[in-house]
Amino acid sequence: MAHEISEAVYAQLLEALGPDGLSREDDVRLAYGHDETEDLSHPPAVVARPSTTQQVSAVVRICARHAIPITPIGGRTGLSGGALCTLGGVGLALDRMSVIEHIDELNLQAVVQAGVITQVLQEAVAAKGLYYPPDPSSRGSCTIGGNIAENAGGPRAVKYGVTRDFVLNLEVVLPDGEVIWTGANTLKNATGYDLTRLIVGSEGTLAVITRAVLRLVPHPKETRLMLVPFASAERACEAVSATFRAGVTPSAMEFIERDAISWTMRHTEGLPAQLSADPGAYLLIEVDGDHADAIMRDCETIVNVMESFEAGEALFAETASEKDALWRMRRSVPVSVKAHSVYKEEDTVVPRYELPRLLRGVKEIGARHGFSSVCYGHAGDGNLHVNIIKGDLPDAFWEKELGTAIREIFALTVSLGGTLSGEHGIGLVQRPYMDIAFNAAQLGVMRAIKQAIDPQGIMNPGKVLP
Amino acid sequence: MAHEISEAVYAQLLEALGPDGLSREDDVRLAYGHDETEDLSHPPAVVARPSTTQQVSAVVRICARHAIPITPIGGRTGLSGGALCTLGGVGLALDRMSVIEHIDELNLQAVVQAGVITQVLQEAVAAKGLYYPPDPSSRGSCTIGGNIAENAGGPRAVKYGVTRDFVLNLEVVLPDGEVIWTGANTLKNATGYDLTRLIVGSEGTLAVITRAVLRLVPHPKETRLMLVPFASAERACEAVSATFRAGVTPSAMEFIERDAISWTMRHTEGLPAQLSADPGAYLLIEVDGDHADAIMRDCETIVNVMESFEAGEALFAETASEKDALWRMRRSVPVSVKAHSVYKEEDTVVPRYELPRLLRGVKEIGARHGFSSVCYGHAGDGNLHVNIIKGDLPDAFWEKELGTAIREIFALTVSLGGTLSGEHGIGLVQRPYMDIAFNAAQLGVMRAIKQAIDPQGIMNPGKVLP
Repeated sequence: MAHEISEAVYAQLLEALGPDGLSREDDVRLAYGHDETEDLSHPPAVVARPSTTQQVSAVVRICARHAIPITPIGGRTGLSGGALCTLGGVGLALDRMSVIEHIDELNLQAVVQAGVITQVLQEAVAAKGLYYPPDPSSRGSCTIGGNIAENAGGPRAVKYGVTRDFVLNLEVVLPDGEVIWTGANTLKNATGYDLTRLIVGSEGTLAVITRAVLRLVPHPKETRLMLVPFASAERACEAVSATFRAGVTPSAMEFIERDAISWTMRHTEGLPAQLSADPGAYLLIEVDGDHADAIMRDCETIVNVMESFEAGEALFAETASEKDALWRMRRSVPVSVKAHSVYKEEDTVVPRYELPRLLRGVKEIGARHGFSSVCYGHAGDGNLHVNIIKGDLPDAFWEKELGTAIREIFALTVSLGGTLSGEHGIGLVQRPYMDIAFNAAQLGVMRAIKQAIDPQGIMNPGKVLP
Repeated sequence: MAHEISEAVYAQLLEALGPDGLSREDDVRLAYGHDETEDLSHPPAVVARPSTTQQVSAVVRICARHAIPITPIGGRTGLSGGALCTLGGVGLALDRMSVIEHIDELNLQAVVQAGVITQVLQEAVAAKGLYYPPDPSSRGSCTIGGNIAENAGGPRAVKYGVTRDFVLNLEVVLPDGEVIWTGANTLKNATGYDLTRLIVGSEGTLAVITRAVLRLVPHPKETRLMLVPFASAERACEAVSATFRAGVTPSAMEFIERDAISWTMRHTEGLPAQLSADPGAYLLIEVDGDHADAIMRDCETIVNVMESFEAGEALFAETASEKDALWRMRRSVPVSVKAHSVYKEEDTVVPRYELPRLLRGVKEIGARHGFSSVCYGHAGDGNLHVNIIKGDLPDAFWEKELGTAIREIFALTVSLGGTLSGEHGIGLVQRPYMDIAFNAAQLGVMRAIKQAIDPQGIMNPGKVLP
């Protein structure tokens, strides 16, 4: 496969994109050559920044003709290296395709280009009383296209579902440059294979997502947010599944271990004064709905459940600014962990009730290998972000033993009915572990699909499939 | 492809399945040779009724070796002919695999074999305070495996989602006999291609579904059910999207045209005395939840919306038996239509607000071609079942002009952003219309997937793809 771009191909790309849409300057290549995955840098040979689907198609056709790798690039907030141009080639950034084309208040749908920032869409639909729930922590800079490619989640998934559950239809450019829509703009669809959901989560390895029709829901009228302290992180995790068994579905149920709280608190303004970082862990729990009294009763049920797991007193956010501060704190956890130390993050997910077993197992594996870890995540979904902290560990451990330890964590995850990634995707960095989740027959089906749709293997090569 | 079964192959199948699991008797072949699609009959050459996944695998391996068509058969309630053995071969009935293996109250999941009857599962989980919402009208005899194969819906999809939204993981037998699980037992999953949702709705053309891990939710504590009469069917359809814009999401929002009501009423015991079949159409609206007062306020909002579309007085079901009678009436509509006349049913689906336009267009197409139609369906999802009534129409019309008229209905549907099937699937009878919904490039991707997974083309040949 051609990794470099010849002058002749560059000239073709330039003709397709114009000078504003193409660059091979080093600073631009470097800027588009990383995401939020560790400190990895894999710049493309050229950065293509199309402004229309037709331009995307033209770029893909040129690459197909010359067998040049194409790596779609969204908001560069990914945590599995899915947008890294490990083989050079064309970095296809969708950031100039950032138009919200239509907010359809009659059908509760939005039509957006792939490069729209998630939070921008959320605010635009909220202004019309509508709600787009998927909200990754990076929602201020990640894009809808990237969210779809990675099947991103976030706190509200526990009640509303992940990105996949809000995608009705996709415009994509296939590896031969052909532009298709994957389905129809309908809530139900039993017409042929579900190409839409095959593309969701395929991490740019099957097609380039250029446009999406998204489902919206009425915006909930009320929310209550509480932070519940636990002396024991394991007891906090046990309280999670008990909440759902009590018949309540919170709109968020986040778990945060002590260290993650304490590293984050000091950078967060406006937190409730009573908050301390002493407890072993916190659950951040939100209940939303349209009827304040019903929400209050659900909160009472939750508090009763929490008390039966030896929780401390629940701290309710009393004002909008306290709510905002608590959510800012939660969303800052990944950045705070990153600022604290070199680390390695795993996006483990298990059935909800298995969470305490996963947490205990991670700590046991850590004790055996001599590393500490900080865990947090979307506990209501069984999705635990395990951050292995380098701290003072020798480089030799980091380079050699770490991989073994991670394999043990994933083997535990899979043995509990879980899998490698809940919402970050496999991308580059989890690819070596795919054999833990899938056997040869399962991977064979995935490879057959990849081969059928992208026979040249030009779409985001080196990702997902081992 | 071999359509007949040689004595040698029959002997191999007999060895794999035992005498209880295999039959080529005519009465058995005929019994397994139809579903609820019109009066079509396409019996298999032999009926295989495995009782374990290993037996399914053995049958598939034998068929793969001899290129014999395999058609998976569920509850035989399908409305698109997906289970008809049009090429003979092996009819692979899953009805002996009907064990609910585990209701996991801690993780809110159920593990079931493919042949479990949907209503049996619903009642088993309800006894534990849990809810499996997908409820096709045929829920008393359809199976989970068939529901998954067709991505079945039903009234509750409008709030809870379709079958696809409740499938976490699938055990399937691939066309070479290999047994795999498609994913993990987790609520979130961003690990490789979404094979689970590729299999959902693939109508037995990619693999045989043998076992499923299903998501459950807490059972709602309360429901209110109302029947709202409208002088005009179009006004009723207009009221549907207005309800969601008012911020309320009912747990069911069904549309029933006058004729469907009047044909059904007379066969239904226990209906509220005030019910008459005079209005042009009814909306049957259910609101569920955990708080009776919140439900009442949502019902008030709905009634206000209905009044603004000139509805008559809403008739609330006052007792459990009235609720039950109204739901029985709704579920009997398909049977009543079938009893009334030869008919042809289309499972059109459009974005919700386009429903009045679809209904008007269907009536205009009917007026032009001289047929009458009876429409009903899951209006909250934009899913309208259009029943073209043969009545006194000449056979010549039925054989010739009908196809043209159906093409016009589907072309209208697609022009409104909709598609051919919301929940019945394409199967055999909608296959000639696939070109209306998909162009060559779209069908090309579907065909490439089919070819990649089932290169011999033995899995349910002649279905879905034209």
